[in-house]
Amino acid sequence: MTLTEMGMNARNASKSLALATAEEKNIALEKISHALNENVAEILAANAEDIALARENGLSEAMIERLTLTEKRIASIAAAVLKVKNLPDPVGEILESRELYNGLKLEKRRVPMGVIAIIYESRPNVTVDSAVLCLKAGSAVILRGGKETIRSNRALEGIMRTAIESAGLNPDCVQLVHDTSRETARELMGMRGVIDLLIPRGGAGLIRTVVENAKVPVIETGAGNCHVYVDAAADLTMAANIIKNAKMQRPSVCNAAETLLVHKAVAKEFLPLARAALIGCELRGCEKTCTLLPGIKLADESDWSTEYNDYILAVRVVDSLDSAIRHIEKHSTRHSEAIVTQDAHAAAEFMNRIDAAALYHNASTRFTDGEEFGLGAEIGISTQKMHARGPMGLKEICSFKYFVTGEGQVRG
Amino acid sequence: MTLTEMGMNARNASKSLALATAEEKNIALEKISHALNENVAEILAANAEDIALARENGLSEAMIERLTLTEKRIASIAAAVLKVKNLPDPVGEILESRELYNGLKLEKRRVPMGVIAIIYESRPNVTVDSAVLCLKAGSAVILRGGKETIRSNRALEGIMRTAIESAGLNPDCVQLVHDTSRETARELMGMRGVIDLLIPRGGAGLIRTVVENAKVPVIETGAGNCHVYVDAAADLTMAANIIKNAKMQRPSVCNAAETLLVHKAVAKEFLPLARAALIGCELRGCEKTCTLLPGIKLADESDWSTEYNDYILAVRVVDSLDSAIRHIEKHSTRHSEAIVTQDAHAAAEFMNRIDAAALYHNASTRFTDGEEFGLGAEIGISTQKMHARGPMGLKEICSFKYFVTGEGQVRG
Repeated sequence: MTLTEMGMNARNASKSLALATAEEKNIALEKISHALNENVAEILAANAEDIALARENGLSEAMIERLTLTEKRIASIAAAVLKVKNLPDPVGEILESRELYNGLKLEKRRVPMGVIAIIYESRPNVTVDSAVLCLKAGSAVILRGGKETIRSNRALEGIMRTAIESAGLNPDCVQLVHDTSRETARELMGMRGVIDLLIPRGGAGLIRTVVENAKVPVIETGAGNCHVYVDAAADLTMAANIIKNAKMQRPSVCNAAETLLVHKAVAKEFLPLARAALIGCELRGCEKTCTLLPGIKLADESDWSTEYNDYILAVRVVDSLDSAIRHIEKHSTRHSEAIVTQDAHAAAEFMNRIDAAALYHNASTRFTDGEEFGLGAEIGISTQKMHARGPMGLKEICSFKYFVTGEGQVRG
Repeated sequence: MTLTEMGMNARNASKSLALATAEEKNIALEKISHALNENVAEILAANAEDIALARENGLSEAMIERLTLTEKRIASIAAAVLKVKNLPDPVGEILESRELYNGLKLEKRRVPMGVIAIIYESRPNVTVDSAVLCLKAGSAVILRGGKETIRSNRALEGIMRTAIESAGLNPDCVQLVHDTSRETARELMGMRGVIDLLIPRGGAGLIRTVVENAKVPVIETGAGNCHVYVDAAADLTMAANIIKNAKMQRPSVCNAAETLLVHKAVAKEFLPLARAALIGCELRGCEKTCTLLPGIKLADESDWSTEYNDYILAVRVVDSLDSAIRHIEKHSTRHSEAIVTQDAHAAAEFMNRIDAAALYHNASTRFTDGEEFGLGAEIGISTQKMHARGPMGLKEICSFKYFVTGEGQVRG
């Protein structure tokens, strides 16, 4: 099938899906969850082929770990589908309602986006997560995963489509692009009038390619060079606890901290506490930090803008709140930034001045997450400022339209 | 000045403007309005140079009319600035507020977009309108107008910047690109990390170029192939009145109707009423229409997708509500679509099924407008589905961020 045909099928499916009731969509989600559990053997067999080929092609063990499915992982993917099913339907909510001066009744109602395309890399759970979030939000989805998991993805696609059809919905609500060449990704990026929203999910290279080349609307996700700033008025025990969590709890994710900034007034007391809290983490410090923590590596300029996604932390002593803010403005990817302080004025200045999706006062940056924010699930974390910012749940992948009702009004 | 320097100035200005109070911004707007009225002679002299050059270059009288300023037009631009001043400040409004399960307090607050760029064509009022809307919304703006009005725009820029500075704000909140070569437009479209939002304002060619080439986030505006559908259950007097208004009141604008669809059950009775209501308008009909209205021109396939912006209307008789919806789905630019009917079910089906920014029941499409919708003013009408849809006022050119306040919470 060509992408043009796939696009037409998706547009067509999106029309009936947009009008489906919450109940109809929920039945489909329940059937998908059930079918995933019922077809574990088929999924594992397809996944085993992907893994065998990955080993043949010399992929790293870390990569192979990411694309591997197990019975337990499939059960957890199926359980996540039921969680999405149990979320409230975002479609149809009245966002604004007013009567205009001329008696016209104006309502702004949330409606599905239409057709959403997702370009992603290796993890096969993204195939199911993205499909069910789009389905619940009333949009047809075109999935373009990576070649490393194409067999697993095809199995998951087939199972989901059969389940959707058995629920009485159009199976073209979920379509996977089987040709994983670069050409199909390029073509998707240019399908204006067919794709209403394109979301890249994956590494920095993929996201940059999509953002720079797409002619269809895109939401940029992902990059997180997050900072924790320990102010002169910080509770230092709390600060050590927060930087430990922000750096160490799961260093591979985008909301993990990459740089610690410490006000000079508390550096001498705090840095040893930080080092004790960060055992197992490599520290790369500015000159002052190296003086106060002898033996650690000297950071170079590139460290301030590196998203390590690893047990490495850059550490800098700053002269003032203002220096901290200026450092962050210079290096931030506008994801999540935290201040630890007992001084409410310093916190307000930090949070008002810094341009990021989420600003934290006395809490870990690790909370920037759809579930933590109470959105139920997320399809990614937006680092752009248009449409959606921060965790994107069901509402964030919807659009809206105006319903205007009159009795023959014309414009004067 | 290079665009890179201009971009740095804009980012810098955007930081202080984002923190400016409503009062500080309002003083600047008042001074801009006052200065426009005070400097009419300077503006008219610059505009006269633009007009003389336009004549020399053989521009059409219609084009020259669009770029011409008069004392009255300047007074009206200055008055519009005061109207923007009197609108509520969109910045800082709390959009959501909740306490999470772990006691974290989460607030979603509206914040300025940052740096907005506008690429536009001939009308010099856009220079002032765009600048003051961005300023009120707390964003710095980079204006890239057309070469036909560069002298007028430079005069307006100088007057606005002096006024902004005299109000104590950074004049780099408003900057005009003086080099009107294609190269500067291209360069603006690629300024990632500097420009947060790019809005093209002008003809279809300009908008397509920007949408297809920009690497920065764009809001697509403008194209309006709007339909009025007269249902079997329509009040035909009301319908004639609505199509007259939708087509004739101001045919050059995007919310004017371009195609009339008529249910076959009322075609014989309605089409003569429509013809009588549309005196002065060329009709191009389908075969059935031509039979019922002898003497009118036969429409060809291209008529259904043409945005005439003129006293021309395509007319088609359809077999059913469903045919009308399918015709609109095929040809719509997703701007504004109207149904005239006394049948509430037909109206609901039309409005639910059609994918457009604004759906009308028993009212003219001409109401899709920022002032009519009660937004106070507009910077354009979005025809895309991301971020903003339909008229974009002050709120629609803002972003938001999350403020999360804790007492040392870390993620478990």
